[in-house]
Amino acid sequence: MTILDRSAIDGAAPGGSRERTTAAPASGTRQDGVVRATAVGALQLEAGGALPEVELAYETWGTLNADGTNAVLIQHALTGDTHVAQGEGDEPGWWEALVGPGKPVDTEKYFVVAANMLGGCYGSTGPSSLDPEGVPWGSRFPFVTIRDSVRAEARLADRLGVRAWHAVLGGSMGGARALEWAATYPERVRHCVVVAIGAYSTAEQIALAQAQVLAIRQDPHFNGGDYYGGPTPVAGLGLARRIAHISYRSEPELNFRFGRRGQGAENPIEAPGHAAERGRYQVESYLDHQAAKLVNRFDANSYIAITEALMSHDVGRGRGGLVRALAKTKAEFFLASVNSDRLYFPEQSDELARALPGEVPVHSIDAKIGHDGFLTEIGQLGGELRRKVFTL
Amino acid sequence: MTILDRSAIDGAAPGGSRERTTAAPASGTRQDGVVRATAVGALQLEAGGALPEVELAYETWGTLNADGTNAVLIQHALTGDTHVAQGEGDEPGWWEALVGPGKPVDTEKYFVVAANMLGGCYGSTGPSSLDPEGVPWGSRFPFVTIRDSVRAEARLADRLGVRAWHAVLGGSMGGARALEWAATYPERVRHCVVVAIGAYSTAEQIALAQAQVLAIRQDPHFNGGDYYGGPTPVAGLGLARRIAHISYRSEPELNFRFGRRGQGAENPIEAPGHAAERGRYQVESYLDHQAAKLVNRFDANSYIAITEALMSHDVGRGRGGLVRALAKTKAEFFLASVNSDRLYFPEQSDELARALPGEVPVHSIDAKIGHDGFLTEIGQLGGELRRKVFTL
Repeated sequence: MTILDRSAIDGAAPGGSRERTTAAPASGTRQDGVVRATAVGALQLEAGGALPEVELAYETWGTLNADGTNAVLIQHALTGDTHVAQGEGDEPGWWEALVGPGKPVDTEKYFVVAANMLGGCYGSTGPSSLDPEGVPWGSRFPFVTIRDSVRAEARLADRLGVRAWHAVLGGSMGGARALEWAATYPERVRHCVVVAIGAYSTAEQIALAQAQVLAIRQDPHFNGGDYYGGPTPVAGLGLARRIAHISYRSEPELNFRFGRRGQGAENPIEAPGHAAERGRYQVESYLDHQAAKLVNRFDANSYIAITEALMSHDVGRGRGGLVRALAKTKAEFFLASVNSDRLYFPEQSDELARALPGEVPVHSIDAKIGHDGFLTEIGQLGGELRRKVFTL
Repeated sequence: MTILDRSAIDGAAPGGSRERTTAAPASGTRQDGVVRATAVGALQLEAGGALPEVELAYETWGTLNADGTNAVLIQHALTGDTHVAQGEGDEPGWWEALVGPGKPVDTEKYFVVAANMLGGCYGSTGPSSLDPEGVPWGSRFPFVTIRDSVRAEARLADRLGVRAWHAVLGGSMGGARALEWAATYPERVRHCVVVAIGAYSTAEQIALAQAQVLAIRQDPHFNGGDYYGGPTPVAGLGLARRIAHISYRSEPELNFRFGRRGQGAENPIEAPGHAAERGRYQVESYLDHQAAKLVNRFDANSYIAITEALMSHDVGRGRGGLVRALAKTKAEFFLASVNSDRLYFPEQSDELARALPGEVPVHSIDAKIGHDGFLTEIGQLGGELRRKVFTL
C-alpha cells in the first residue's frame, strides 16, 4: 500500500495514487492487500441528497470458498484505510496482530475484505472525487451517514459474490459500521465484532466532533470546501487532529510520556518577546507531529465528511429505538472496550450489550493508552476471537 | 459590575468600561464590588520580557481592620473577573454562595479583595491596554506567568495596606494563583485555599490549552494579535471556548442534558445539500451559545495571555521541585477537588496534598457537572471553611 500523497489530494485525483483495478476478482488470482475499486451505482442518501455514481475502494486477502461461507469484512476507523494487514507489498497493516496467515483472522482460511468508507480519500467516492462533469465535489459533496456507507458496501459485497459475511468487525468508527451492517442486513451478518464504541454517538462525542469540524471550516484556506488546486486547510485539519488525538489517549499516558518537559533544548518559560516565541512543551511538539502526519495523508473535506457520518451514528434511529433495532439482528455479537478509553467509555459498550438480545459479554482490552488501545492492543482479543468467531 | 462590552475591547480602551478610580481606599468609604484600578509600577517578567508600567484592577468588600489581620484575597479563574460577590450594584458574583454579608467569607468581618489577573481584559494591564506610546500592545504584549501576576498582586497588597493575607483562595486557575502566593510570599499568607487544581499544569492540560491557543491564532482576523480597531477573531475565540467548555463539564452531564436530540425543530440527519446545512444537535447549539457569550465579553489576546500563563503553572519550577518549594510555605492549606472533574482530576489535588508539609486533607465537592462544580457547588465547602479558615 502506498499512502496517498498530498499532490494527489490537492489535485483531486479520485481514488488517490494507489494501484487500482476495475475488475473485482473474488476468486481466481489472489491480490492480497492491494487497493482496488469498483463502481456500485447511484446512491440516494439518508439525509436527502444523492450521489449519481459511487465507487468503493477495497482490499482483499485470501480467497472466497465455494459455498461463500468464509467472507469477513473489516471496517476501518475515522482516518483509517483499507490496509488492515500486509499483503503483497511490505507495508504492515493497522490490525496486523489480528489478520494474516496463521493469525486469528487467518487469511489462508478466510476471505477478508476491507472497504474504504464512503466520503473517504483512500479511493472511495468522496469530496475530492470528480463529479460527472469532471469537477471535484468539494463544497457540493452531500452529507453521508454511516448507513449510507453500509448500503454502498452491501453492493460491493454483491459484486464480490458475498451473500453473507461470516463476520463483520471493526473498532471505533469501524465498530459503528459493523453494528450498522448487523442492523441493516440481519441475514447477511453471522458474527458482529464491535470494539471500542457504543450504540450511538453521545453528546460529548458530538461536541468534540463539532470542534474538529469547525477547526477545518474556519481555516481561511477551506473556502467552503472548494480548495482543490489551491492552498489547502492544513492548519485547520492539523488542529482538528490535535483535538481528536488528545481524546484518543488517556490522561495518564500523556502525563507519563511528556509531563511538563520542554522539547529538546526548548524552554517553555523563556520568551523575551511574546508567548508565541517561547519554547514548546514536549506534548505540544508531539501533537504538532501528529497533526503534520495527518495533513500529509488525509483530505480535510473527507475528514469533515467522515466525522459528520460518525456524529450520525445511532443504530436505533428510525427503528423504534435501540432495543427494537437490535432485536431484529441475527448476528452473534462479540463486544470489547478498552479499559482506559475516555472517548468511547467502556460503559457505552456495556449499554450496547444490555440492549442486545441474549447475554452478550463485553471483553475488556487492558491498555493504559486510552482509546487507541483498539489498535495497539487488539492482539489481546485474538484468543477469544479464535474460540468464539474464527473457528475454522 | 458592568460586563466589559465588545466595543471597549475592540477599541482597546485600557481597563474596559467599568467605573474606575485611581485612589485605593482600603479604609474609609466602602465601595463594595466596584472595580477600581491602581498603578503598581514596572515589572520585569519571569520569561525575560518586561512591562514598563502595570495597572491592576480590583474590587473590594468590607473594611481592613486596624491591625490588618482580616484581609482575604480571592483569585478568579481563566475567564473570570473581579466580581466575586454582589456589591453596591445588583449583579451577583461568581462565588456568591461563599462571599458576602453573613456568608462563610463574611464581608462584614473580612476585607475581601479580588484582583484581575495580569494580562486580562477586565481592567488590569493586558494585550488590549495601551503601551506608553498610546498604541494597544496586541502582538507585542509579553509572555506573563502566574508568578508575574502574583508579584504584581503583591504590590497591590502593599498599596492597600495589606501586609499579610488572612487567606488567599481560588479555584481552577485562581487556585494556581493562590498556591503561588503561598510559595512566593510565605510570610504573607496565613491560610491558602486551593480548589480544583493541582501543583502544576499537566501534559494533558497543556495539550488542551495549545489547541485553544491555536484556534485563536489560526483565525484570519487574529493578525498576529494586532486586530484592535478591525475585525476581531471571534470564530477562533469561540472555538477555543468550545474546546474548553467540553473539558469543564463531565461526560454524563453533557449526555444527560443533551443526548442526541436535535435543537428545537432542527433535524441533524436532514441535509439535502452538504453536511454544513444539516440541523444542529442540542449540544452543538449549547456550545454555540457558550462561544457567543464569551466572545461578547472577552478579548482573544487576553484569552491567549492567560491560557499561556496557566500552562506555566508549576509551583516547583526553579525551587528544587515540588516538595522543596512547598516546604518553605507557612500557610495552613485547605484543599478541595470536584469528584467528577476530568480536567483537574482529584488525583492531582491529592498529589499536591501529599507534597505539602504535614497532613493536609482534600475536601471533595460532590457534583455531577464536572470541573465547573468549583463554581456551582462551592457552597458545599462553606461549613468547613467557617470551621477551619474563616473563624471570626
